[in-house]
Amino acid sequence: MTSDPKTVTVIFQPLGRRGKVPAGISVLEAARRLGVGLSGVCGGIGVCATCRVIIPGEYQDGLSPPSDRERERLGEEALARGVRLACRALIRRSLQVFVPPESLTASQRTQVEGRQTPVQLDPALSVCDLCLEPATLSDLRSDADRIRDGLGRPVRIDLEVLRRSPLLLRDWNWSARAVLRDDEVVALLSPGAPLLGVAIDLGTTKLAGYLLNLETGETLASAGAMNPQIAYGEDVMARITYALQEPEGAERLRQAIAEGLSALVGDLCAQAKARPEYVAEAVVVGNTAMHHLFLGLPTRPLGLAPYVPVESAPLDVRARDVGLPLAPGATVHLLPNVAGFVGADHVAALLATRMDEADRPTLLLDIGTNTEICLAVGGELFSCSAASGPAFEGAHIRYGMRAAPGAVERVRIIEGQVYWETVEGRPPVGICGSGILDAVAELRRAGLLNGRGGWTENAGSDFVLIPADRSGLGEAITLSRKDVGEIQLAKAAIAAGWQVLLEEGGIGQSDLARVLVAGAFGTYIDIGHAVAVGLLPDLPLDRFEQVGNVAGAGARMALLSRAERERAARIARRVRYIELTVHPSFRERFARSLEL
Amino acid sequence: MTSDPKTVTVIFQPLGRRGKVPAGISVLEAARRLGVGLSGVCGGIGVCATCRVIIPGEYQDGLSPPSDRERERLGEEALARGVRLACRALIRRSLQVFVPPESLTASQRTQVEGRQTPVQLDPALSVCDLCLEPATLSDLRSDADRIRDGLGRPVRIDLEVLRRSPLLLRDWNWSARAVLRDDEVVALLSPGAPLLGVAIDLGTTKLAGYLLNLETGETLASAGAMNPQIAYGEDVMARITYALQEPEGAERLRQAIAEGLSALVGDLCAQAKARPEYVAEAVVVGNTAMHHLFLGLPTRPLGLAPYVPVESAPLDVRARDVGLPLAPGATVHLLPNVAGFVGADHVAALLATRMDEADRPTLLLDIGTNTEICLAVGGELFSCSAASGPAFEGAHIRYGMRAAPGAVERVRIIEGQVYWETVEGRPPVGICGSGILDAVAELRRAGLLNGRGGWTENAGSDFVLIPADRSGLGEAITLSRKDVGEIQLAKAAIAAGWQVLLEEGGIGQSDLARVLVAGAFGTYIDIGHAVAVGLLPDLPLDRFEQVGNVAGAGARMALLSRAERERAARIARRVRYIELTVHPSFRERFARSLEL
Repeated sequence: MTSDPKTVTVIFQPLGRRGKVPAGISVLEAARRLGVGLSGVCGGIGVCATCRVIIPGEYQDGLSPPSDRERERLGEEALARGVRLACRALIRRSLQVFVPPESLTASQRTQVEGRQTPVQLDPALSVCDLCLEPATLSDLRSDADRIRDGLGRPVRIDLEVLRRSPLLLRDWNWSARAVLRDDEVVALLSPGAPLLGVAIDLGTTKLAGYLLNLETGETLASAGAMNPQIAYGEDVMARITYALQEPEGAERLRQAIAEGLSALVGDLCAQAKARPEYVAEAVVVGNTAMHHLFLGLPTRPLGLAPYVPVESAPLDVRARDVGLPLAPGATVHLLPNVAGFVGADHVAALLATRMDEADRPTLLLDIGTNTEICLAVGGELFSCSAASGPAFEGAHIRYGMRAAPGAVERVRIIEGQVYWETVEGRPPVGICGSGILDAVAELRRAGLLNGRGGWTENAGSDFVLIPADRSGLGEAITLSRKDVGEIQLAKAAIAAGWQVLLEEGGIGQSDLARVLVAGAFGTYIDIGHAVAVGLLPDLPLDRFEQVGNVAGAGARMALLSRAERERAARIARRVRYIELTVHPSFRERFARSLEL
Repeated sequence: MTSDPKTVTVIFQPLGRRGKVPAGISVLEAARRLGVGLSGVCGGIGVCATCRVIIPGEYQDGLSPPSDRERERLGEEALARGVRLACRALIRRSLQVFVPPESLTASQRTQVEGRQTPVQLDPALSVCDLCLEPATLSDLRSDADRIRDGLGRPVRIDLEVLRRSPLLLRDWNWSARAVLRDDEVVALLSPGAPLLGVAIDLGTTKLAGYLLNLETGETLASAGAMNPQIAYGEDVMARITYALQEPEGAERLRQAIAEGLSALVGDLCAQAKARPEYVAEAVVVGNTAMHHLFLGLPTRPLGLAPYVPVESAPLDVRARDVGLPLAPGATVHLLPNVAGFVGADHVAALLATRMDEADRPTLLLDIGTNTEICLAVGGELFSCSAASGPAFEGAHIRYGMRAAPGAVERVRIIEGQVYWETVEGRPPVGICGSGILDAVAELRRAGLLNGRGGWTENAGSDFVLIPADRSGLGEAITLSRKDVGEIQLAKAAIAAGWQVLLEEGGIGQSDLARVLVAGAFGTYIDIGHAVAVGLLPDLPLDRFEQVGNVAGAGARMALLSRAERERAARIARRVRYIELTVHPSFRERFARSLEL
């Protein structure tokens, strides 16, 4: 049999998705058939230009020649670099297509892992293969001494490991892999089993977890989940209040997160067909409040001026003392916090992006309910936390929702016509953060909003984004003046934050060589729109990089390397924390930044 | 006012009990009035000579001159040393009376603490007084960093301490005492509070606990309690079987002992008006099975040949991991075990009695359900464990009972008449171990038992120890042929044990310079009777010493001194364990030792 001459193979990078499609269809159609979330707000009519892809030189003749529409929307310079509109370019033969992050649908973008700097493998754990002699009447050594003799040194053995070792050693016929942390045996693995660790980014809204093989450095699985503490308050302050005011509130929050993380670890292990009790270490990063709630530390001091943490230093605790069902003696390493509202997730982000060795002025923003911002300039690191609120998570917006299926994630207004795209292409049921930002920016660009956030026409009524007959809700999805106001408040808080840092660093916007935009929302958003509304500095787009979940990436690096942990500790000590609420120019900058 | 000329002050040593009594009464009567448990088997008629006391030279003329009965029962040599019969000597003026251990009633004897060698204070914990500055907007250090800065070094802080520190520091106005173990803060105490530790002897039948001030070395309280595991089996093997055969059996045993010890610590703290959460360390000793059950280690390997322990090395575990409610970060130190049936309690006994530096052949016996025996000879330590069974605890004896109120603890047969004494003088309700040993020895001496344990008269019927009309039970308390048989089995196991050790050490009975008899039963018994029945070597009585609970004493020494812990570890490694069950001469020696 010969292969069908009309079938070709397409590989989408960097996702690595590959499959056969009939020749002659568009790249956009091929992406849809292969499950690649390539954006296409206008529905593939060549209007929105959100489906840009890049074709490597050697594959460029595998497509139909650029159409007039492409020449018009992209320009000759981009075409020369291999940029094409996926909806217009037809496939002629097998080829590879590179999808830039901004052309991926929001939900798929988060599958691209945060930027991680390669690290030398130097984990805190080591593993040693044992092959022991069973006990006899002439060899009455204890099980523990047998292990010590097998290792050739006088190690301690964690009590939980001791409790399980007799059964395991006999089940495994006296062969085992001993996992050591410093001079202590923290787990016994069956012969041949890999040494595993998990890295966890403990977000206020979302949890992200990664299962790693600590002997190879390989990431075996990654997974996300909602933070179950959301049931007790959507932002940090609401949870601190809950912990203070409800009897057993703090303990309920601690249990919620322990259960959420246990389920996440279970999910990761199921993906990799591994056993949670073989996971011998975890690295956890989160903001300071999440860090405290996870550890069961009191959050009262975090909720009252002067907002001091109970602990900022790097910390190793037993997984069992924080309710995580890992290996019997597993430890959890927590990266250091900087201040009450700048936590270990920020330190991890600085670690992953190597902000500590930036040789040109660089700004890092991790946009969320709290937005942590860092400016690296002249060898110094200035950090602050801006209370941006949950509007970008879809909260406090009438039709707002999280980036779940059916959420409008992209909006374009072209010649008075509204185009949109939803997560997973489902009928629209609400708008998520990136969609709201898009809508506000496009409304302003189209002249329908003024700089103060008011309608220029039809004052008083709401703007209809999705008419009732196309909505999955059975009613129109609209944007109100109040919704726009929420976005103004959020973006002003963030903008005032980076402006204060620039002031502290003694530089202006244009001195910034790079701006790194991190986090889930930072990955979803259209950078051009974020600049247009003043959320991000007014700089050429090529100075921006969407770096993904760098907090999670930093956690993975710390899991793989003790040197990275030490580096994180040095970073935390170096950061100069700027408390915005008492900064002399913050209020004025905030007020001025409300303008769209 | 002048004091009543007819009232005098009597001080009983070494108990230190002091009080006023009318002149003219006997020393025995004075002891009873002051609550001193002075023995008096014959009821004070000058027959039994069990009420011997010693009057220091300077006080000898404070008593009536020796009576004819005293001259007859004691002899001139003893009288010259100040020995008197308390029931015959009448008090004339204030004086001190020394009560030798053998003249104390059994129950009171155990109040005299085990022999303890004085140790240089060198505890594993240190304490540091902190006086910290509260947080302000210009000083945002974490609580933990404030503690570290106060201590002047980068310590770790236990998670449980961290959890509690914010509230405590603010309650105490930022003053506190930090308790350190190595480089970790394991507790915070209120300003001025003492640093406390507990030493615990975890016996199969009884628990003994001591509360110590680790800054002064002072014992603040001591207390005893029954081991609540008794409900699940009276000896070690029964409990191992229970742990193996019942679902959750091992966990139930672990919880029982954790609850028993928690109550004991509560009792100790109540005595000293201290708080359990201020007890920052515990040292626990027990036999290997108790050690394992307490730690939640599997006991299956201990119950099957070759009887190897899971762990023999010294061990530090968190109190919270074994269910003890002490200070949040308190540790429990377990002294090392030697073998499956020679545990840390034996090591503690060797430590307290300095058997490791004995310069003449010395035998130590700690008699219990299992009897641990050690022979020190020529710089070597030989130890074994004899399965003596619970007969000496009153079990398997028809009218047997523990040494509780109403237990017959002493028996004398004088001119065919049976005299007895009960614990606390209550009407007799049973016989405890020392009473059974006395009875068997006296019956044999009086010719009523033959060497094989059979009655010489009235074969078949039981010997009436207490007639029904004087018994608190409403029926006669008797001794059967089977009861005598149980004692024969128990004493033969012990005798065969020390005989095997003498054989291993290459010496004979008469080469023994000292025999130390330890433990509760060892403290209760009449040494002369124990020698008479062959339980102890046939040596002059002055070579024996009843040393009390030396396991508990060793635990206290280890609590006060790290050097003692290291010494205990060296002792455990030095001991040559002799497994009796496979020793070539054990069976024959056991059979021969059945003879009374």
